[in-house]
Amino acid sequence: MTTIKVGLIGTGYIGLVHLEVLRRLGRVEVVAVADTDRDLARAAAARFGVERVYDNAEALIADGEVEVVHDCAPNNVHFDVNARAIGAGKDLLAEKPLALDARESGELLRLAEARGTLAGIDFCYRYYPVVQEAAARTRRGDLGEVRAFAGHFLQDWLFFETDYSWRLDPAIAGQANVVADLGSHWFDLVEFITGRRIVEVMAELHTCLPKRRRPRGGVLSFGAGARGESEEVAVTLDDYASVFLKLDNGARGNFTTCQAAAGRKVDLEIQIFGSKESYAWSHVHPNALWIGHREKGNEVFYESSQLQAEETRKYATLPTGHPLGYHDAVFNLFRDFYEAVEAKRAGRPHEARFPDFRTGHRMMRVIDAAVRSDKAGAWARVE
Amino acid sequence: MTTIKVGLIGTGYIGLVHLEVLRRLGRVEVVAVADTDRDLARAAAARFGVERVYDNAEALIADGEVEVVHDCAPNNVHFDVNARAIGAGKDLLAEKPLALDARESGELLRLAEARGTLAGIDFCYRYYPVVQEAAARTRRGDLGEVRAFAGHFLQDWLFFETDYSWRLDPAIAGQANVVADLGSHWFDLVEFITGRRIVEVMAELHTCLPKRRRPRGGVLSFGAGARGESEEVAVTLDDYASVFLKLDNGARGNFTTCQAAAGRKVDLEIQIFGSKESYAWSHVHPNALWIGHREKGNEVFYESSQLQAEETRKYATLPTGHPLGYHDAVFNLFRDFYEAVEAKRAGRPHEARFPDFRTGHRMMRVIDAAVRSDKAGAWARVE
Amino acid sequence: MTTIKVGLIGTGYIGLVHLEVLRRLGRVEVVAVADTDRDLARAAAARFGVERVYDNAEALIADGEVEVVHDCAPNNVHFDVNARAIGAGKDLLAEKPLALDARESGELLRLAEARGTLAGIDFCYRYYPVVQEAAARTRRGDLGEVRAFAGHFLQDWLFFETDYSWRLDPAIAGQANVVADLGSHWFDLVEFITGRRIVEVMAELHTCLPKRRRPRGGVLSFGAGARGESEEVAVTLDDYASVFLKLDNGARGNFTTCQAAAGRKVDLEIQIFGSKESYAWSHVHPNALWIGHREKGNEVFYESSQLQAEETRKYATLPTGHPLGYHDAVFNLFRDFYEAVEAKRAGRPHEARFPDFRTGHRMMRVIDAAVRSDKAGAWARVE
Amino acid sequence: MTTIKVGLIGTGYIGLVHLEVLRRLGRVEVVAVADTDRDLARAAAARFGVERVYDNAEALIADGEVEVVHDCAPNNVHFDVNARAIGAGKDLLAEKPLALDARESGELLRLAEARGTLAGIDFCYRYYPVVQEAAARTRRGDLGEVRAFAGHFLQDWLFFETDYSWRLDPAIAGQANVVADLGSHWFDLVEFITGRRIVEVMAELHTCLPKRRRPRGGVLSFGAGARGESEEVAVTLDDYASVFLKLDNGARGNFTTCQAAAGRKVDLEIQIFGSKESYAWSHVHPNALWIGHREKGNEVFYESSQLQAEETRKYATLPTGHPLGYHDAVFNLFRDFYEAVEAKRAGRPHEARFPDFRTGHRMMRVIDAAVRSDKAGAWARVE
Repeated sequence: MTTIKVGLIGTGYIGLVHLEVLRRLGRVEVVAVADTDRDLARAAAARFGVERVYDNAEALIADGEVEVVHDCAPNNVHFDVNARAIGAGKDLLAEKPLALDARESGELLRLAEARGTLAGIDFCYRYYPVVQEAAARTRRGDLGEVRAFAGHFLQDWLFFETDYSWRLDPAIAGQANVVADLGSHWFDLVEFITGRRIVEVMAELHTCLPKRRRPRGGVLSFGAGARGESEEVAVTLDDYASVFLKLDNGARGNFTTCQAAAGRKVDLEIQIFGSKESYAWSHVHPNALWIGHREKGNEVFYESSQLQAEETRKYATLPTGHPLGYHDAVFNLFRDFYEAVEAKRAGRPHEARFPDFRTGHRMMRVIDAAVRSDKAGAWARVE
Repeated sequence: MTTIKVGLIGTGYIGLVHLEVLRRLGRVEVVAVADTDRDLARAAAARFGVERVYDNAEALIADGEVEVVHDCAPNNVHFDVNARAIGAGKDLLAEKPLALDARESGELLRLAEARGTLAGIDFCYRYYPVVQEAAARTRRGDLGEVRAFAGHFLQDWLFFETDYSWRLDPAIAGQANVVADLGSHWFDLVEFITGRRIVEVMAELHTCLPKRRRPRGGVLSFGAGARGESEEVAVTLDDYASVFLKLDNGARGNFTTCQAAAGRKVDLEIQIFGSKESYAWSHVHPNALWIGHREKGNEVFYESSQLQAEETRKYATLPTGHPLGYHDAVFNLFRDFYEAVEAKRAGRPHEARFPDFRTGHRMMRVIDAAVRSDKAGAWARVE
Repeated sequence: MTTIKVGLIGTGYIGLVHLEVLRRLGRVEVVAVADTDRDLARAAAARFGVERVYDNAEALIADGEVEVVHDCAPNNVHFDVNARAIGAGKDLLAEKPLALDARESGELLRLAEARGTLAGIDFCYRYYPVVQEAAARTRRGDLGEVRAFAGHFLQDWLFFETDYSWRLDPAIAGQANVVADLGSHWFDLVEFITGRRIVEVMAELHTCLPKRRRPRGGVLSFGAGARGESEEVAVTLDDYASVFLKLDNGARGNFTTCQAAAGRKVDLEIQIFGSKESYAWSHVHPNALWIGHREKGNEVFYESSQLQAEETRKYATLPTGHPLGYHDAVFNLFRDFYEAVEAKRAGRPHEARFPDFRTGHRMMRVIDAAVRSDKAGAWARVE
Repeated sequence: MTTIKVGLIGTGYIGLVHLEVLRRLGRVEVVAVADTDRDLARAAAARFGVERVYDNAEALIADGEVEVVHDCAPNNVHFDVNARAIGAGKDLLAEKPLALDARESGELLRLAEARGTLAGIDFCYRYYPVVQEAAARTRRGDLGEVRAFAGHFLQDWLFFETDYSWRLDPAIAGQANVVADLGSHWFDLVEFITGRRIVEVMAELHTCLPKRRRPRGGVLSFGAGARGESEEVAVTLDDYASVFLKLDNGARGNFTTCQAAAGRKVDLEIQIFGSKESYAWSHVHPNALWIGHREKGNEVFYESSQLQAEETRKYATLPTGHPLGYHDAVFNLFRDFYEAVEAKRAGRPHEARFPDFRTGHRMMRVIDAAVRSDKAGAWARVE
């Protein structure tokens, strides 16, 4: 048994989640972290016993011991970090989005395929055990043909005018905010559970709060509102979006997202209506899958290492009834990814069940289409 | 104390609900019922002790003792029945929709206003006690400015190909099915709770099941599927629809409706996000209002004759904790309507808090705009 | 079709509920009401169009037109009113408890049986549609053998020291408060759903608030706290009780009740664990029955006029998904009772499915045993 | 920064949970594991990269590098392992119960106090963030005086006659099964949240399934039923128990537990009723605390690193809305324990907020009293 050596770039909130979850994988060791904020990087290294600290991504990628790179940097450097890691022959687990637009993400996919890179992307919501279960049931035919779907992804951390985030700045976040940041997760769930592809969208992107107060210092994700001095800024990116969707079998769906929804924290909900039964899942009670029937009572199926489909039991790692949480979903994704890494190292075949750069690129194309649709006020195809 | 004399037209499912609820109003007496199916009318009369039975609407309207008409006939005769009742000087409580399109509903509104008719329409969902409470809280400023809203209205009684209804036949139902039948209720809730007007929509109407089996005999509402012989028919009206909406203050909303959603029975859900707090209400648990906050725990407010706003306590008629149901919502609407009738009889001023023909006409205009939008693939103004 | 003539005694809160629900039964007419508070009685008569008003029970019972008496008087006159109505040859629907103790309730049962009286008692919670469904499923064997059960009945209307009720006065309420008032409903549900008899109990009766403020004027049920002048009184009756129970097959159960549970309004919950499956029902969401399984997902079964067992569909009177409430449960009980009255009038056999004086007497014996157990600090048999 | 060296005894289900959670603590390293089943121990060591494997507890305790021992062995060796670890000068984190009865647990407490051992016990349910929040609110006076409490802890893994566990064998499990195994967790929550002590109990222990099939080979915890050959055994330990409780301020409570409750997996629920407000928490939806009010709407408070009381925010480690699970509760307990270990190493004062051997001994005394009460059929004091 050998240990896989990992380097992680970006030690903000999500970087720390990666570090803690990586520790739970017994055979993976983080040997280096990098952040342009060296103090942040040092604190992370100290907390998790990481040996080497770099103040830039390039240096970490150049570290010969690093075999796998975790890209937790801000959106606007994703393309560069990912491309560089691929170029250096590392395997790669990237935060979403892959890049700022589909042209870039397509380029990354091309690079990764050319190089044979194992390239994962952190669409972690699909790794809650009952989401895996819904997908497995669909694959074995329980759902029948998907006909329609609906849902939302709501938050309230941008509720006040004094809430500000780099995600609202097009220079860092790209062409869209909430439809990209939250929408991509929801769109991935649609494709993952139904096994279908999104082919056309009609979107409206809207800014509920066109003016905000930006702190004169920097801002972190999920910040608790500005402190100290601030200045008024005009916001043009969306903090609300709604999207009609069509799948490749003609099924229709509808999605709403908003980050100014007081009282909704990480409220992702999805309902899928098939020709045989229905599924509903809410991230607020992530341990249960609702299964709807026309002719008998509905089911509330709790995640279970005993009762789930054979292939999804491993994601419900505890005896039935011990609830898993967000950390466990991320853990499940990482475990799948590193099983593929081990297989690759061992020259064994591996099936990339985890979301990869094809997934990431496809989601980017959906976002691109949504932005085009909003501008045109008309339906747009996913190209 | 005098009794108000009522005649009811249409003794199908919803007609029977009206009859039972009317009995609970102590000072109202149903003196006549009419239905083209005379056996149905006779059975209803026998069950509720109604004196006279007619086999057509005209005869009932011509009955001099009848002061108030309840129009529970099918959609395609609504215009005629309503116009005739107004013309005969009756007051009127009509099932929705008022008519088949906005031209007709506008004409009815004109007639009613010219004649001074008390003309109500049965948008009963707004009469659940906590829906009234949400509207009252909005009026007193608790919500702040509405920014966004979202929700759905899902059913499964058209889930199977063997499910058929006159609502799918344009000759009887009009230009739309589900967006009209269920959508109108939801749109009414939006306007009622927010106090705002819907001014523009973008809609997609879709038919999940383009072929169905129609029984060769007749069909009833909420039928349990065809029995006996049936024939295949092409369905063109919508059994799924999604609609983006704009309010007159610029707030955005999104709505999904479907009647092929296995396991969803009468699943209406609405969320409203304001600048101060949020509301959510689900018809599946109709007794509680969710009130969302950014800076503290959320509330689950149970209908209460003790704790609701002064003006809405009368709708929660039992001691707190005794759940009210659908019958009670209809009762609350009828009681408001008949208080206005009593006031009119007594020459007292009365405030028409109940949904009236202006409401009904406005909802018809929203439906018309949705149909136009769907055909054009573009936003349409409510005209 | 003849109409059944009814007289109602006691026009307080529950009397008004009876009057409103009686109106929904098409073939029943209330011809007289009585209350020692004549103004209260007059107001009730005016609201529901009742012809005659009496200021005492005797006079109403002596009214020759009255065929059926509804006894909604306070507990301490139940015995007298019930005995007198039976003696006068009336059929009888009584509020619970039948009397103040099991000696009295046994006497009433003897009188009713001797006279052939149709004698019902208002244990209305069993008439929510899915409670009927649970009982029907047990009868057909779905539950298997009942092994254990648990639950509670919680309220908060006696939460403050300034909350006072005649139910806390032994002279009016009898030997116990909450274990009798709320416990009897819960015990009835246990026997109704399981089809078993409670044979032994171990109880603790406790007074959370041993001192209260009693208003110098009178008090009503579910009052909103004393207003005006009040005096301190020592309270000896229970506002909290817990009870272990044994059924005649050896199954064990446990029950908690309290009227000082802030935030719990009419929160009755019961869980029943059988050898094949489990049931759980909560009055807070009264429309759904939870059905628990070991080997597959659990069910949430919504009341349904389509999906319930044949014999219980009539209790779910609306199309599936239109929620019924407390009024509808009372209506279901009344309808069953009056169907028996009609059958008796017609000389047809009738099966007394509604809770009757045998039920009422049995519940009184359980309460008696609980009081004895509490005093002895030991198990007591139901005698 | 130095690393703390840990040895873990018992590599069954809960041992693996400890190992995974220990990895998340950056500064703790497991250097040795021990199990009498050496293969099991080896597999655990391989998975988590542990250096040394022993086949008995004594050898591990004798390992000079081991500073802290985790005791995850079966109940019947707890006393011996714990006593030995204390004697060897190790700090100690033990699974519950501390020992088989209160005489033994008292001896362990005496030993630990004499030696100055940091001795924790894994009552992990109190480490869900909102359970901590409830306790913090009680400490600052929000609850007022606790008056009453109620709840249950239900499972179904002993539902079938073919389900068997060493927990049903008095030689290994001790004097009681479910009231000890599940009850102790619930009793700990009562004392933790209320800050009160349980002083008297009345208990009934009952065996729903007095005969079971025991597999001829061994059995594991949470096994999925016997496979292969089995033999019938008489079961005398409880698979159902109910307990009345009194706190030191006179508050009353009631608890039910059962392991044959089909559909209930790890269903722990607790409600606490104070003189100012109420709390309710369910392990089925562990992320939310219900806060009940008499005079206003109830609250549903979601775990939050932003909104919780200052002192409990650290237990909600993710941005509000990312649900934590069972692993995270165990992590929170371990982190508190190891902060104390670090403080002890550094000679800093440390406050033992984590559950320790005093807690473990007190819970054992409550169990002892429950067993005595059941035998006597009368109340028993906690001695």
